[in-house]
Amino acid sequence: MIDIDQANKTAVERMMAARPILRRIALARDVIPDMRDNLLLHAGPPITWERASGPMRGSIVGALIFEGLADDWESAVALVTSGKIDLEPCHEHNAVGPMAGVTSPSMQVYVVENVTHGNLAYSNLNEGYGKVLRYGAYSAEVIEKLRWMNTTFADLLNQALAAMDGLDIRALLAESLHMGDEGHNRNKAGSILYATKLAPFIVKADGSAVEKGKVLQFLGDNALSVLNPVMAACKAMADAGHGVEGSTIMTVMARNGTDLGIRVSGLGDQWFTGPVGQPDGLYFAGFSADDASGDIGDSTITETAGIGAFAMATAPAIVTFISGTPELALNTTLEMYEITEAEHTMFTIPALGFRGTPTGVDIRKVVELGIRPQINTGIAHKDPGVGQVGAGLVLPPMNVFEDALIAFANRYL
Amino acid sequence: MIDIDQANKTAVERMMAARPILRRIALARDVIPDMRDNLLLHAGPPITWERASGPMRGSIVGALIFEGLADDWESAVALVTSGKIDLEPCHEHNAVGPMAGVTSPSMQVYVVENVTHGNLAYSNLNEGYGKVLRYGAYSAEVIEKLRWMNTTFADLLNQALAAMDGLDIRALLAESLHMGDEGHNRNKAGSILYATKLAPFIVKADGSAVEKGKVLQFLGDNALSVLNPVMAACKAMADAGHGVEGSTIMTVMARNGTDLGIRVSGLGDQWFTGPVGQPDGLYFAGFSADDASGDIGDSTITETAGIGAFAMATAPAIVTFISGTPELALNTTLEMYEITEAEHTMFTIPALGFRGTPTGVDIRKVVELGIRPQINTGIAHKDPGVGQVGAGLVLPPMNVFEDALIAFANRYL
Repeated sequence: MIDIDQANKTAVERMMAARPILRRIALARDVIPDMRDNLLLHAGPPITWERASGPMRGSIVGALIFEGLADDWESAVALVTSGKIDLEPCHEHNAVGPMAGVTSPSMQVYVVENVTHGNLAYSNLNEGYGKVLRYGAYSAEVIEKLRWMNTTFADLLNQALAAMDGLDIRALLAESLHMGDEGHNRNKAGSILYATKLAPFIVKADGSAVEKGKVLQFLGDNALSVLNPVMAACKAMADAGHGVEGSTIMTVMARNGTDLGIRVSGLGDQWFTGPVGQPDGLYFAGFSADDASGDIGDSTITETAGIGAFAMATAPAIVTFISGTPELALNTTLEMYEITEAEHTMFTIPALGFRGTPTGVDIRKVVELGIRPQINTGIAHKDPGVGQVGAGLVLPPMNVFEDALIAFANRYL
Repeated sequence: MIDIDQANKTAVERMMAARPILRRIALARDVIPDMRDNLLLHAGPPITWERASGPMRGSIVGALIFEGLADDWESAVALVTSGKIDLEPCHEHNAVGPMAGVTSPSMQVYVVENVTHGNLAYSNLNEGYGKVLRYGAYSAEVIEKLRWMNTTFADLLNQALAAMDGLDIRALLAESLHMGDEGHNRNKAGSILYATKLAPFIVKADGSAVEKGKVLQFLGDNALSVLNPVMAACKAMADAGHGVEGSTIMTVMARNGTDLGIRVSGLGDQWFTGPVGQPDGLYFAGFSADDASGDIGDSTITETAGIGAFAMATAPAIVTFISGTPELALNTTLEMYEITEAEHTMFTIPALGFRGTPTGVDIRKVVELGIRPQINTGIAHKDPGVGQVGAGLVLPPMNVFEDALIAFANRYL
């Protein structure tokens, strides 16, 4: 008889023992397993062009233009519908990407190493605010910014990371959780910690002072600078808990704008999918819920690893961004303890007497209690090319947990 | 008949309307009013060498060595006891300094301008941790570090501040209070915000990349980098509320290691003094309460302006440094509402539903309720030359409020 409790303990202990170090930046085609010239990675579970949401389509078009494989919307659509371009989930390549998460072979990606268990994880670079590829924008200015990030920005950061011998993202996260971040939608403290740690090495790197100034300004102004290294770190931690025989711990939760999918530690690489929810939140001036895309992005790897909405009690200021009250933030964390296996040994919440964050969703508890994992999220416009329109709260569909539990029973019981 | 309530409202509204901008760094002798070659400024109310505490004496000796007026302890003591050196409070020169606060004519100081009312305030530069002048250390390495700060460090920061056209410290504080700082003993977020805002301009300043790297490393590693600009900003805000006829609002609270002194808005420049308390807190390894100096420093300008211990509810992680529990942090803020005039319009506490920090101590309420203003503080070793030995909580002596209230009655009632 399989000991599920013991398996879950093992899975979550492995997640918490993982120590993710940001090593370097490299071209996706050079480091991501099974990356190839005609492959685009995307957020969430598998998706076809035909079923893809507006922002996902916009990002795919932008990535093909960035790769030089298309010139405009029409030629990109012709190419992707010709069958010559493969679309596969980031998660199937040890990678994660926020929002549409589209990652193409020529993009630079962060390389994070879990030095405890040796596995690697990857994420693309964060473009900041405004018209950005991850929200489905693909205009010339978007592509130009990507090119700058892919060359000057990546080069200076890479020189700094080499001089620093890597950066411990778990330690950075532990610190930022004591500074009002929850690590998903609020990464203000983490991003300036990141900028501050890189700055002394960027200044000594090879390059022009003007470009170094631009890089430091960009890192400091973008309160999401560290989101992508954090996501790769969470992926490295969650993957460390994946593949434990008999475990009902969720190790992936991700959305592509159409479907949300989860994976479970003891159920291999099978996806359990259902329709994404519509986020409930605050909208930027001039936008409303009518403009919102369905829930999208791999950034729920943060909740999967025990931070994000699960750590909202430590980030009461976030409610000015995602809606709600500080009490809601507190109660969200308290509720997540009901469906998780452990309290994190490294990520603690001062306001709760330094209690560890709720970590490791047990799909048994989700189904039994009817409590779904809470998600903090940015909200994309439903049309390609527009960008972010707000931020809020959303839940995964219950069927993914029920389906996974049935599959678990069929396999093990 | 004087309308005390209206006068207090005016005083605190002026404090909250003040907008302190960090303008530049300049030599104390060039900018501090009535600075002169034989004058040393110090923390707290007036003190003589004979009554000065160990760390205050060590700092005075160090400053005389720094100025080239003495070579060692003996020659410094001979000079200061000869009557040729004047000792005056920083507060009597629109200035503030942490711990001993000793500021000599050749030291570089921050210049903060309250652009709402036009008054200026000053503070010396923060030396970081370890053996530092402000804790009474005066060895050759201390003096050498001061010289580096006074030249290379000050020059690069000054170039950056000029290029930035100043830095709004009130806005920085408002942000850092949402990131787990209380602005007195926890300035982690504020200091990395400060480093992040300066970095793009430091990198473009004239100077060597190696020195720029050292400056950025020093700013980023020192979680008190921003304390001195914050203190000068609080001084500029508190001074804006000083001198309101008929007001019982405390506008200065400061300690010299022997005496604590307060000033009151409606009572001019008169000091009301009493014996300092002994902080109750956590000690570094190898030290205990037996090693502690009496309470020392002008940093209580933070509590005077509505932050520091008054804002502890927003900084629960601070209890790992100063002792206590997150509940104590919360209750401290709640208690301070009892003795203050207003809730700050700019400084808010997310965990309390974005309630403004308790601002403007009314000495009438202190005496009537028997509740004294709480102070967070670093703890200096009682002997000169040792440095910081811990951090904790302390209270001012009650007599200073009683004496001030009697003086107020004699003058106004």
